[in-house]
Parts: sequence; C-alpha cells; structure tokens
Amino acid sequence: MSSLDALRTLLDPSAIVTDPEAMAPHLTDWRGKHRGEAFALLRPRSVEEVSAILRWASATRTPIVPQGGNTGLSGGATPDASGDAVVLSLTRLNRIRAIDIEGDTLTAEAGCILADIQQAAAANDRLFPLSLGSEGSCQIGGVVATNAGGINVIRYGTVRDLVLGLEYVRADGAVIHGLKPLRKDNAGYALQELVIGSEGTLAVVTAATFRLFPRPRVGATALCGLDSPSAALKLLSMLKQFAGERISSFELMCDGEMGLTLDFVPGTILPLERRHAWYVFIELGDGAPNSPIGEVLTETLASALEQDVLQDAAIAQSEAQARAIWHLRFAVAEANRRAGPIVSHNTSVAVADVPAFISAIEAMAAEHLPNARTLFVGHVGDGNIHVVLRLPKETPAEQLADIGHAVNAQVFAITRDFGGSITAEHGIGRNLTGTLTLHAQPEALALMRAVKQAFDPLGILNPGAVLAKR
Amino acid sequence: MSSLDALRTLLDPSAIVTDPEAMAPHLTDWRGKHRGEAFALLRPRSVEEVSAILRWASATRTPIVPQGGNTGLSGGATPDASGDAVVLSLTRLNRIRAIDIEGDTLTAEAGCILADIQQAAAANDRLFPLSLGSEGSCQIGGVVATNAGGINVIRYGTVRDLVLGLEYVRADGAVIHGLKPLRKDNAGYALQELVIGSEGTLAVVTAATFRLFPRPRVGATALCGLDSPSAALKLLSMLKQFAGERISSFELMCDGEMGLTLDFVPGTILPLERRHAWYVFIELGDGAPNSPIGEVLTETLASALEQDVLQDAAIAQSEAQARAIWHLRFAVAEANRRAGPIVSHNTSVAVADVPAFISAIEAMAAEHLPNARTLFVGHVGDGNIHVVLRLPKETPAEQLADIGHAVNAQVFAITRDFGGSITAEHGIGRNLTGTLTLHAQPEALALMRAVKQAFDPLGILNPGAVLAKR
Repeated sequence: MSSLDALRTLLDPSAIVTDPEAMAPHLTDWRGKHRGEAFALLRPRSVEEVSAILRWASATRTPIVPQGGNTGLSGGATPDASGDAVVLSLTRLNRIRAIDIEGDTLTAEAGCILADIQQAAAANDRLFPLSLGSEGSCQIGGVVATNAGGINVIRYGTVRDLVLGLEYVRADGAVIHGLKPLRKDNAGYALQELVIGSEGTLAVVTAATFRLFPRPRVGATALCGLDSPSAALKLLSMLKQFAGERISSFELMCDGEMGLTLDFVPGTILPLERRHAWYVFIELGDGAPNSPIGEVLTETLASALEQDVLQDAAIAQSEAQARAIWHLRFAVAEANRRAGPIVSHNTSVAVADVPAFISAIEAMAAEHLPNARTLFVGHVGDGNIHVVLRLPKETPAEQLADIGHAVNAQVFAITRDFGGSITAEHGIGRNLTGTLTLHAQPEALALMRAVKQAFDPLGILNPGAVLAKR
Repeated sequence: MSSLDALRTLLDPSAIVTDPEAMAPHLTDWRGKHRGEAFALLRPRSVEEVSAILRWASATRTPIVPQGGNTGLSGGATPDASGDAVVLSLTRLNRIRAIDIEGDTLTAEAGCILADIQQAAAANDRLFPLSLGSEGSCQIGGVVATNAGGINVIRYGTVRDLVLGLEYVRADGAVIHGLKPLRKDNAGYALQELVIGSEGTLAVVTAATFRLFPRPRVGATALCGLDSPSAALKLLSMLKQFAGERISSFELMCDGEMGLTLDFVPGTILPLERRHAWYVFIELGDGAPNSPIGEVLTETLASALEQDVLQDAAIAQSEAQARAIWHLRFAVAEANRRAGPIVSHNTSVAVADVPAFISAIEAMAAEHLPNARTLFVGHVGDGNIHVVLRLPKETPAEQLADIGHAVNAQVFAITRDFGGSITAEHGIGRNLTGTLTLHAQPEALALMRAVKQAFDPLGILNPGAVLAKR
C-alpha cells in the first residue's frame, strides 16, 4: 500500500487531490517567482482531518507544506522541487466559529478569507483592523502563520497583537486547544506566540480567537504631496500632536512607484493637481461619535501647508473618494508585478531613521545599479519601507537571480548598519533562509533550531522554510 | 577553591553578598508567604557580569533565582529551602539607555523601577502605560519576566504588547542582543515572546525596548456605586459606545473589599455619599488636546444614572481628587495583606462571563466556606477578577495551607468550567506549578517542557518555577 493509499483510508475522497491541473495553482506563488512539486494536494474539511494528516505524515516522514490563500511573498507556502512533499491546504476550514460582542472577540478557522472576517466584524459594529493588499484572498491561518502586518500597524499592531488564542496541530497530530477569549493569561510559556509567525514550520494553525475593536464612527482620509521623506516625518509628528492615537495609517510612496501604479493598474487616478516627489496616505479614525477628526485633519494639513511641510493635499469628501485614494496604495503590488523585472525588499528601521535609510539605499543603487530605478513605498509610521529596485526591461532573464542576490546583499548590509530588520512583515519563507543564517546572531539562531527540534523533531513541517536545511 | 571563590575572580567584590542580614529581604517575598535559602546574593552591575555569572552557574550547575523588585505574588523570585541556589538581583542594572521621541520608544535595563520609567516617559511628553499597585518598587526586568498586566490592559495590553525588543542572557551565558526599536520584525521565530512571561526560567532579561504612547492631554476619572457586576458590564458597554478606545481603565470592586481598604489603609476616603454593593473605577484619556472627554464621561454617567445602571458617581474635579480615587484601588493589596488570613486568586474569564463567574464563586464559598467572606476586585474590562476569600481571624495558622488548597481546587475548577485562566497576570511562580500540571493540556505541557529543555538544558534557571520539578 502506497503512503497515499493509507491516507485514503483516513480522509474523505474529496480531501485528496492528485490531478495535475487542479494541483498546479498550489505549486507556485501568485507572483510566479517560486515553483515546486508535490505528490498530492490535501484539502481537509476539519481539524480532525488535519490531525489525521499529520499523524500520517509523522508515520511516513512526509514533508507537509501548509498553505492558505497562497498570497505570501517569500515562498514559504510553495513546496521545493523534489516532489517529496504534500501541500496541505486549509481552505476548507472556513467557518467563523463565534463572535462575542460584549467581549469584543471573534473566533475563525484558518481558511477564512481576511475580507470576510473584516465584514463579519463590521456587521456586528466592530472593527477587525488587519488590512493589507491581498485581503480579498489571503486567509486567516496564513496571516497568523506569517504574523502579517499591513497598513494599520501604527495603531493596532501586527497579527500578534490581535490574537488572543490559537488552536493548532502539532507535528505528531496532537491538537492544542488554545482558543480563548482572554486578554490576560500567564499560565505557562507563551507557546502560541512562537507559533505565530513561524510560517508553518512549528505547527499547523487551524483556528484563532482575535480581538475586535470599536468601529471608527468617524473617519478622515487624505493624500498629500511632499518634497521628501523627512517632510513626511515632520507631518507625522504634527499629526501625532493633534490626532493622538487616532492615526490608523500613515503610508509613504515615492513618485516613481506612484507612476507605475497610475500606468499599470486600471482605475487609478491621482487626486492632486500635479505630481510630487513623495506622497503620504493618511487615515484617521475615531470610535466616538461626534469626533471632530475631520477638522483636526483639515487644520493639521493646512498648518503643514503653511509651514511648507507639504505641497498639496486632497482630503476625501466621500467614501468613494477615500476608497479611490486607498486603491492607489493597495494597487502597488499589482503594479510592481506588471511593471517588469524588480527586486523588492521588506526591511524596517527605526522610524526616525527612515530618511537616512532611504538616502543610503539611493546612494548604493546609484553606484551599483545605475540603470535601475529605486522606488520606495511603505508604512513610514512603523518604519517599514519597501525598497523596490526596478531593473531595465531588457535585463536578460538569466541574469535576474544574480543581480537579485547582489542587490539584496547590499540592501541587507545597509539595513543591518541601521539596526533594522531584513524582513519586517513578509517573513523568511524559502527566499531568505540564507539571509537569516547570515544576519541573525548565531546564538539566537541556535535557539531557533532548538525550538524547531522541540516542536517538530522529525522535521516534517514545512522543511526548508525559515531555517535553512543543513 | 569553592565555587563562590571561583566567582570572586570574575566579579567586583560588591557584587557578591553573603551577609545573612543583607540577604534576608531577598529570601522572602513581600507578603511573607514564601521563605527560602540561598548561599549567596549576586548583584551584578553590568550585562557582562550577568553573563559571567551564568557561565559560572552552568559550569558549577548552580541554580539561579533571578530577582527584580521582589514584588511578585506567586513566589517565582524566592529560592527553595535547600540553600543550593544563588539569588541573582538585577537591581544594579538600572540605566535608561535611550529614549527616542520620534520613534516613541524607550530602552531600559532590568533594574529600573517602573515608576521611574513612567516619569522618564512623561518628562518627554509620552506615556508608558503600564501601571500597577507595586509600580513604586517593581522593576522592569520583573515585569517583562512575568508579563505584568495592571489597570491599563483594557487599552494598552500587557507588557508583551509594550515590548519591541529584548536583551537577555542564555543559561550558558551567551548574551542575545535583541534590543530594537522596530514595530515589525518577522526575521525568524519570536524567541523574545517566549522569554516574556517565562519568569526567569528560560533566560535572564537584562534590558528591553518598549513602545511609548501619546500622553493623554485630557483625562477624566470617576468612581461609581452600582448594584451588581452585570450593571458594571452594562456601564462598560455604554462607555464603549461613547468613549470608544479612550477607556484606559475600567475596574470593579465589591463593597467588602472597599471596606477593608477604608479600614486598613490610612488616607483612604470614599468620595460617595453612602456605601454601595459594587464600585467601578473609570479612567478615560485622550492624546488629542481639546477633547471633550470630560463631557463624554459626565453625559454617559448621567445617562446611566437615569437608566438605573448606576446609583451614584463621583467625577474627579482635580488631579488630587483623581489620585485619591485611584489610591482606593491601589491600596487593595496592602489592605489584604493587613486584613489577616486570606486566600487570593488571579483568574480571568471572558468579559461577558464575569457576572456568572462571580455568582458561581459566591455559591461555592457559601457552601464550602460559610465562615469566609468572599471579595472581588479587579479588571472587569479585561475579564481579570481577583477572587479573595477572607478567612475568620481565629483560623488556626496550621490549617491555612490545607484550607487554601481546598479553596483553590474549587476556584480553579469553576474557572476551568468557564474556559478561563488560572493565572491571568501573576504567573505560575512556585505557587501554581501543581495547578498548571493539573489544568494544562498534557500535550501543551509537554511542549513547554521541550522548550525549557531547548533554552536551559542543564535546568539551572529558576528550577521549580513555572514547571514542577519531576
């Protein structure tokens, strides 16, 4: 009996897919940067089936590659080329198990789409604040496994800050029943914190209990044109002074990236009279009714205009205008995908260091990649600026990998000089395992390996992700 | 050469204390519930000395009991009776290393007093939101090691939510340099999250980088008299509706506990006309100037009075009145300490379950401990209600332990029925290791033991805390 036959005795037939066409979308990431092989795609419908799969995988030493909406940017959900692994899709675990309005919590299974969770919270007059470009297709299990960030981190934190409890399956199939709606629980080690962000290498997340927040009853959205990143930081500081903790998003984009977005993504329009060197996207929100948040934004921007901190600003006068402004920001990933050969990064540095970091990257690029265009877009409010190097269209495909490696080494070295992170929110995946080995403190890396051994002694959970194979 | 002699070659003489009188305060907890022995008290002045101590401890297999302000409530910082251990006091590592106003971060060493950190933040027009009864003497390393909570968790979270980066020393003496002012960093496993709340059993915390927040420019404080815990939840719900995320604290206290506080702690005055069955303490704060937060509170309380949700309310008209109200809340620990024999708990349940949980505890106490008084005080806004059973004064001292065990078993069983936590914010320490063994899922406990093994293979770090000795 082949190992797959053994699995057939444990699972519903619909849970086992071997048809190459049906498997194909699961063997590559959405940017088409990674391709792998698997001898089956498993689509369990329940936690019990996930448990059965992991017991089987442990018994047969079968590598498991957990996969959610497959929107990751680091190759963490794509199997390697060997074909030894199975892809474990959590898509069919897609129930919202509970919403507690009084306690402001929501419990959802791994396969739930992020946008559906946002809507379920909104339907109950609450906010689920996680928001990112792929929210229409990424899944809750994936955002937990990668500790996703997005545009509201400045106010609400990353996924880690939103998770109260976690249900996950250990490598040996044991289900850890850690769902809980508790804001405080210090009963033993914070195992779930370790599982969050471990990219499917320590356990398979099957459900999570999240915090909900007061839904902003009043909001204000603006797009500003500025001369420089340091002007953006000045504006942030002014806004903090007057809007306090009401700043939900504060995003920065350079004009080169704005150009790509306007050129490559249909339906994008710049609501300013002319182009500027830099743009800031602002979202304020207030859970209290009758909040003068709109006036606060108008007055702060007027004052910033007067002081020459910004050059122009468009304040949304309707929901539709607000959506149009944010569409410009969210379209970036799509624009970059269509724009041709790029090398992109997901570094973060201290907020105050952002302008100097950008200058250092520009200087490096001017010296080493004179034909590339250096683009910046990201979450300046939390120091996480995506560096995007757009290579000339005529760059030979076979040179891309080498150029990428060379550029990455430079960008990561600069990041390290600033005491930053090589991967602020996209995780390590399979892309950056070598970089982690190079940049992490060896003693910390040894602890990570010891933790991996503690959770997954047989090494069947997403091998080759996060920690390089040895 | 004795092992202490070996240590003398590594440390400044002032770092090694063996005088019994000087050691005594470090061998018991502040409530006097735990007493232990140690063959030395070590008081390093630097991270390098901490590292040297741990290298020595590893070489000599000496158990290390890390200690901060020694204000813990679970016996986690008191050595056992064997005298085999040394107490490692972090008190002299007490520098604030950096404050970054633009990035809203503060980096402090383990021995810094919490109140000093609050003041340093305030002096820079920022808020460090952690606030708890022992803030005048507890130390930053201890609050990180125990993931402390306190009265502002409803808004700002526990210590875990405040820590951005951590410097800690491994059992073998290796210093993990994880201080960073980054809001986002997904480069590998979240080791620091595991160290937070591990009560000195996985590593010794030497410094942390914390988030700072906008300092409330407008605040409002009130004490309310109510009839029941469910009225308190109704009030919370009304307040959420109008004050949104501006609720910094929402605390509940029963009249029995209020009576103890008024009786036993000098300088406490009830600012209401008469006593009530229950009290709620409210603190609102707003980082934006000109916020109508005071009016919001007045109007919400007036509306609650009208709807008979509350019976009376005192709104502070000055800083001094606000401090007097909060003095009533903070004096509870002192009142309980002076009031005679008590058995206290630190459970949490879902917020909506608080009234039913209180009723269940009262019913249990009426049946099993008819002579005890059942008191409740705590953070109803986050579901963390301290159950305090006050035993008759004449209870023979030698019976206290047995009564305590019996009561605890009942309280924990009820907590488990509600899906709550046996220790919301006080940790496991040495008090609750048996309870953790009993109540934790065995597969989760096994993971905790594997993690302990990964971090501390020789078992020298605070042995007997968190995980029961086997």
